[in-house]
Amino acid sequence: MKTSSLVKVTKAEKSKIDQVDFDNLVFGKTFTDHMFVCDFKDGQWQTPEILPYQPLTLDPSAKVFHYGQAVFEGMKAYKDTDGKVWLFRPEENYERINKSSARLQMPEFPRDFFFEGLEQLLNLDKEWIKSGQADGNALYIRPFVIASQPGVMASPSTEYKFIIICSPVQAYYTKDVKVKIADYYSRAANGGFGAAKAAGNYAGQFYPTRLVQEEGFDQVIWTDDTTHEYLEEAGTMNIFFRINDTLVTCPTSDRILDGVTRKSVIAMAEKLGITVEVRKVTVKEITEAAANGTLKESFGSGTAAVISPIGTIAYKDQVWDLEKPENCYSATIKKAILDVQYNAAEDTFGWRHEVK
Amino acid sequence: MKTSSLVKVTKAEKSKIDQVDFDNLVFGKTFTDHMFVCDFKDGQWQTPEILPYQPLTLDPSAKVFHYGQAVFEGMKAYKDTDGKVWLFRPEENYERINKSSARLQMPEFPRDFFFEGLEQLLNLDKEWIKSGQADGNALYIRPFVIASQPGVMASPSTEYKFIIICSPVQAYYTKDVKVKIADYYSRAANGGFGAAKAAGNYAGQFYPTRLVQEEGFDQVIWTDDTTHEYLEEAGTMNIFFRINDTLVTCPTSDRILDGVTRKSVIAMAEKLGITVEVRKVTVKEITEAAANGTLKESFGSGTAAVISPIGTIAYKDQVWDLEKPENCYSATIKKAILDVQYNAAEDTFGWRHEVK
Ligand SMILES: Cc1ncc(COP(=O)(O)O)c(C=O)c1O
Ligand SMILES: Cc1ncc(COP(=O)(O)O)c(C=O)c1O
Repeated sequence: MKTSSLVKVTKAEKSKIDQVDFDNLVFGKTFTDHMFVCDFKDGQWQTPEILPYQPLTLDPSAKVFHYGQAVFEGMKAYKDTDGKVWLFRPEENYERINKSSARLQMPEFPRDFFFEGLEQLLNLDKEWIKSGQADGNALYIRPFVIASQPGVMASPSTEYKFIIICSPVQAYYTKDVKVKIADYYSRAANGGFGAAKAAGNYAGQFYPTRLVQEEGFDQVIWTDDTTHEYLEEAGTMNIFFRINDTLVTCPTSDRILDGVTRKSVIAMAEKLGITVEVRKVTVKEITEAAANGTLKESFGSGTAAVISPIGTIAYKDQVWDLEKPENCYSATIKKAILDVQYNAAEDTFGWRHEVK
Repeated sequence: MKTSSLVKVTKAEKSKIDQVDFDNLVFGKTFTDHMFVCDFKDGQWQTPEILPYQPLTLDPSAKVFHYGQAVFEGMKAYKDTDGKVWLFRPEENYERINKSSARLQMPEFPRDFFFEGLEQLLNLDKEWIKSGQADGNALYIRPFVIASQPGVMASPSTEYKFIIICSPVQAYYTKDVKVKIADYYSRAANGGFGAAKAAGNYAGQFYPTRLVQEEGFDQVIWTDDTTHEYLEEAGTMNIFFRINDTLVTCPTSDRILDGVTRKSVIAMAEKLGITVEVRKVTVKEITEAAANGTLKESFGSGTAAVISPIGTIAYKDQVWDLEKPENCYSATIKKAILDVQYNAAEDTFGWRHEVK
């Protein structure tokens, strides 16, 4: 285990790990013994600390509660069969959280604080990471930044907290998801901050999602807010379509999150010899392909589930069920990525990062 | 003073009021001795309480930090020269916070809890409300609701806190504001939640606002995100233009906050015999009117300042300064509304509500 002079560590007196049933985890409900916290004030990030997991104390006027200055990341640590711990493309998450922060006029977090803090934290809470690729055992890692300055005026905060909390998880979706294409509500504006992993991008989705859930679907597939003719992404996943034997996904933009899994799926698919097209995808072509049988597969991509196959896709009054094809891209690509994540296959892309 | 069986009251041991310099208040920085708090759990709002103003303790995984489920209101209490305390159209704020909550899949707050809580709180902290219409002395009231359930999964919270905090304030803007019309960034999406007073609508504005501030302006005037051809609203104000002798403002929509001050300005202007047009307003007509001198005035409307005259308006490379006309609408309407708010004139609309 590395030791670091950067991070001040206060260990929990007693671990809570014995109280946890690792075979029946609810996603994102259980947290490990420690958390990483670093405060920004007087124009700079202060000494980072690892502390026992504990509540936050904030003034009721703290800006995060009123003006939504809050960004986050989602990443995972995996344990291989030898007990080694691995991160998947953590550099991408580090860069993305700073991009998200910049779009919300929040200060960037230093690289050494991020990586040393994260690795120290994972080392301390190593026991919480269970091996077991088949069950999707992993440690979900949630770095986030919140505006902590007191004051009810709509201007950027001068104080922030950068925090990392960790939650042991298992496979996210076990069933195929049922999605409905948005024709009225939207997730993000042109020139807005949809591309940022900002807290404010999520709450607005809950009500439209609830509406489709009342019709029996799980999630909304968002479309552009101007015409609703172009498919964009799902609530917490980017989206792929297999038309005949070509895998299609839309380009990222200022409305769409540049998913780490999305770019990994594209690279892995190409490596596996699959033709990938990154281009605008219309609702019209996808609904026609669903109707005439050329839409062979569709899936979402995201850190939580890697790939979530879509079993049903709906648009307005029409509903199509997708049969799993023989040579299923989603299963093949998912397996290939998981093998890299769990150190069960060669890492030709250099995506894996060992936590020592 | 009313007593209420609904609200449980715990008084502060000692008031902080002596430490406050009421002649040098910074907007939204100083808070009164008490706060109102009501928790939602197990599917219902629990007993509302008034407590000494104090920090909130929340789990670091509380959903407000991650998914932006947070809405708020802004209203004011005014003290007249006889020491009576008045609210301005509080029913509007009550209804709007529930509309905002509904759009973010949050539970509505009961009317009796809201009004009894608010009035009890104002009674307890009455001393903090200073009279003085000329200085804009008032108590700014900030009701807000935050998602408090722990858990890092993007789904609606099952637990919330409804809170009211109060801050003594003086006139907000003292100088005329300089604004620049947005031609790239946007505030809200079609089918989004721009019409909700949601935390997530504010943080995204800070970076574009910062960019115009670097050019010497104070605020952005937002335009529609599809074409950037239609003027919508400012960061925390609706916007009015006087073209020749007609006052023009755009209609509300799912992108624009339905401001209480906006609708009061429209009603008051009409009462004063001013012609008001509520219709789409193009960037083209306003910049042409600015260039040819028919744009006589422009101002923002909002609770904080009632009316903020715009002294300079810019679009791309062009900048126009607006000279105050002789018969200035903004000054006349502002005075007329303030007179109602401070109980200095007859309230023909029934807008005033006495806090007893
Ligand atoms: C809106 C949105 N889209 C897509 C994704 C997928 O991104 P990633 O693959 O980096 O997890 C996420 C994050 O999980 C997301 O929140
Ligand atoms: C985005 C936005 N527009 C307009 C306004 C003005 O609304 P009101 O007049 O109700 O204060 C506000 C609130 O202050 C606001 O936040």
